[in-house]
Amino acid sequence: MAMDLSSPYSPARSPATLAGRRGSLHLLLLRPRLATVRCSVDAPKQVQGRPAAVAAEEAPAARKECYGVFCTTYDLKADEKTKSWKSLVNVAVSGAAGMISNHLLFKLASGEVFGPDQPIALKLLGSERSLQALEGVAMELEDSLYPLLREVSIGIDPYVVFEDAEWALLIGAKPRGPGMERSALLDINGQIFAEQGKALDAVASRNVKVIVIGNPCNTNALICLKNAPNLPAKNFHALTRLDENRAKCQLALKAGVFYDKVSNVTIWGNHSTTQVPDFLNSKINGRPVKEVIKDTKWLEEEFTKTVQKRGGVLIEKWGRSSAASTAVSIVDAIRSLVNPTPEGDWFSTGVYTTGNPYGIAEDIVFSMPCRSKGDGDYELVKDVAIDDFLWERIKKSEAELLAEKRCVAHLTGEGNAFCDLPGDTMLPGEV
Amino acid sequence: MAMDLSSPYSPARSPATLAGRRGSLHLLLLRPRLATVRCSVDAPKQVQGRPAAVAAEEAPAARKECYGVFCTTYDLKADEKTKSWKSLVNVAVSGAAGMISNHLLFKLASGEVFGPDQPIALKLLGSERSLQALEGVAMELEDSLYPLLREVSIGIDPYVVFEDAEWALLIGAKPRGPGMERSALLDINGQIFAEQGKALDAVASRNVKVIVIGNPCNTNALICLKNAPNLPAKNFHALTRLDENRAKCQLALKAGVFYDKVSNVTIWGNHSTTQVPDFLNSKINGRPVKEVIKDTKWLEEEFTKTVQKRGGVLIEKWGRSSAASTAVSIVDAIRSLVNPTPEGDWFSTGVYTTGNPYGIAEDIVFSMPCRSKGDGDYELVKDVAIDDFLWERIKKSEAELLAEKRCVAHLTGEGNAFCDLPGDTMLPGEV
Repeated sequence: MAMDLSSPYSPARSPATLAGRRGSLHLLLLRPRLATVRCSVDAPKQVQGRPAAVAAEEAPAARKECYGVFCTTYDLKADEKTKSWKSLVNVAVSGAAGMISNHLLFKLASGEVFGPDQPIALKLLGSERSLQALEGVAMELEDSLYPLLREVSIGIDPYVVFEDAEWALLIGAKPRGPGMERSALLDINGQIFAEQGKALDAVASRNVKVIVIGNPCNTNALICLKNAPNLPAKNFHALTRLDENRAKCQLALKAGVFYDKVSNVTIWGNHSTTQVPDFLNSKINGRPVKEVIKDTKWLEEEFTKTVQKRGGVLIEKWGRSSAASTAVSIVDAIRSLVNPTPEGDWFSTGVYTTGNPYGIAEDIVFSMPCRSKGDGDYELVKDVAIDDFLWERIKKSEAELLAEKRCVAHLTGEGNAFCDLPGDTMLPGEV
Repeated sequence: MAMDLSSPYSPARSPATLAGRRGSLHLLLLRPRLATVRCSVDAPKQVQGRPAAVAAEEAPAARKECYGVFCTTYDLKADEKTKSWKSLVNVAVSGAAGMISNHLLFKLASGEVFGPDQPIALKLLGSERSLQALEGVAMELEDSLYPLLREVSIGIDPYVVFEDAEWALLIGAKPRGPGMERSALLDINGQIFAEQGKALDAVASRNVKVIVIGNPCNTNALICLKNAPNLPAKNFHALTRLDENRAKCQLALKAGVFYDKVSNVTIWGNHSTTQVPDFLNSKINGRPVKEVIKDTKWLEEEFTKTVQKRGGVLIEKWGRSSAASTAVSIVDAIRSLVNPTPEGDWFSTGVYTTGNPYGIAEDIVFSMPCRSKGDGDYELVKDVAIDDFLWERIKKSEAELLAEKRCVAHLTGEGNAFCDLPGDTMLPGEV
């Protein structure tokens, strides 16, 4: 699908042009508007004792999307405490008024993710319905006094919020409602991610790293990258790190060791019930799991089911989905890209398959083992062994992703959608 | 009130002895029982490849209250990565299935609070009703793979959960229901904190630091310390740090500076609408606030109201109370006690008033300016100026706390309760 979206106010976004699309996403299709909310205290007009280091003429232009106390101007390089800091990193988060974000944003602001010398700007995307809640989130961020958190802006237009984003953490998605077909879920959420892909393509940093969390995340990531032809497809990720973390915990439990002894765990495939937690290549205390856990039946039958069902069990226990540990796994996913991977280990992330060395179908987003030098980029680990048992299951997850892809063809520019999804496909946590 | 609670199974806790008490707290009055829940995977029996460093005979005794993967045994000193770590710190948290805890526990586990070389044991107190949710929390902590988090136990009996606690973060309390008088709230929550005080007195570390977050937190802290006569009264805190953080943010907003420029902010008094945010002694960029903010009317009238009402405004915006920023302020409160206070600055915390240099009534819990050497202890800052304006408002908050104290006399061992609470007293955030 050829797109001309070089401007955030492109005519392609007018209601007329978009009338032919399926579904409704009226909020995003409205004329761009600045949904910025200013704090009730009219700070700029009442400034007294402004630090001398700040040039007065910078203020209005530099902070037009700011919220409250984050509208203040400052010069990090002029301050003894902050002059050695890196320059500001722009992190955009969608679904910013939701529960996963409510955990994640405070982790980002605390320095836990990018480090103690990395000041951060948070660009929060919500919906018209959640705008009030988003203000509440911004107020709580104000009240948290995080020294590293230097800018916060909130809004409902991705073409505004994603501007210059160096990281885009796409959490916002609709959960499947009662009686909703998976094809309908793919369509509704796919439209959100098509729009956000276009917005990223138009206004984000040319090397933005995108992590899609909103489900179905692999196919949403595919839709997103297909709608962002000017950004490297390699930069788009689907989050399978929570699955990896859960798999590590279950292997540790079974072996009776603490979880820090488990390494080299891959999640292959789709973030769905077809996901393939790989015990063939996993290690415990540096030894192959199969040498440590002799219960092959458990490994082949129970292990994968336990990992896949963990989300559902948690919902039963806790009464809601696992926001806190999901946020932790997003932190892990980012840290794995901005810190060098420990020697001999790897991590899992859903990435674009074109050029993969395993014979997995090209042009989908598939979770595979990766390593990073810590520069935000990654490379596939190329020499992981795959036996028949593993391959058979990888092919099943691949088939599911290819079916999902056919079902969203209208959103990736590949023609008419044809939905022949296997009936039993569910997301982890769906019951 | 003389108490003999040297044993956690003291006869004082039998239903007969307690029949004369007001209210009902059946859960806590039941015979102590071990509410520990083990993970469905029966790990200890299936251990294979257990690390050689672990002495097999240690395992059963050492971990009897553990949850899931936290039942594994290990020797931190035998491991290259962890041998330089401090010894484990025991942190008990009540209301552990609630939203504030859901933020706080992951911060504690991440190392953000006690530092990157401080392994941590979390001892989580819930109620019978919340036990399932508590299991969900423990499962999410498992799935988060925090290297520093070495033990997690869950339970509903404070005499079990508080055993050897070095920190007790008491969050669990009932919110005021529709039509409930403040005296009824004081009574219901007071009984919880009386019981927990007795439990701490019986089983916690002899130098346990207690931070009461559950409202009305000052009077709850007073009740708690009165029921723990064998623990230093000085070790009990009522959380006013969120108020301090909010006050700093509002001063920064008004002055048009970033919040890291604001220091020496005291919250005096009760964590209620009579709280006194002190602008007389606060500084911006090292200068008295009154020199920077010339708008005296704002300082005298709007500032305090804005801080007091912040919680209520947040509830309106966000639809629920401010769990995330409350958790951040608990982190701040602990960090202020385990790190040396920066030269010339101080922090606010509600502490026992006996011996205070300001002429504030003795034998209540009142928020005042404090400093710490970073050893977990603190000292009052003694030379803070108080003018007539400030003193008048401090006296009003003191009067409220004295009235609250009379209203809970049956819980502090000082005879019959007499409730003459001022009608307008509300907690921050109550609407």
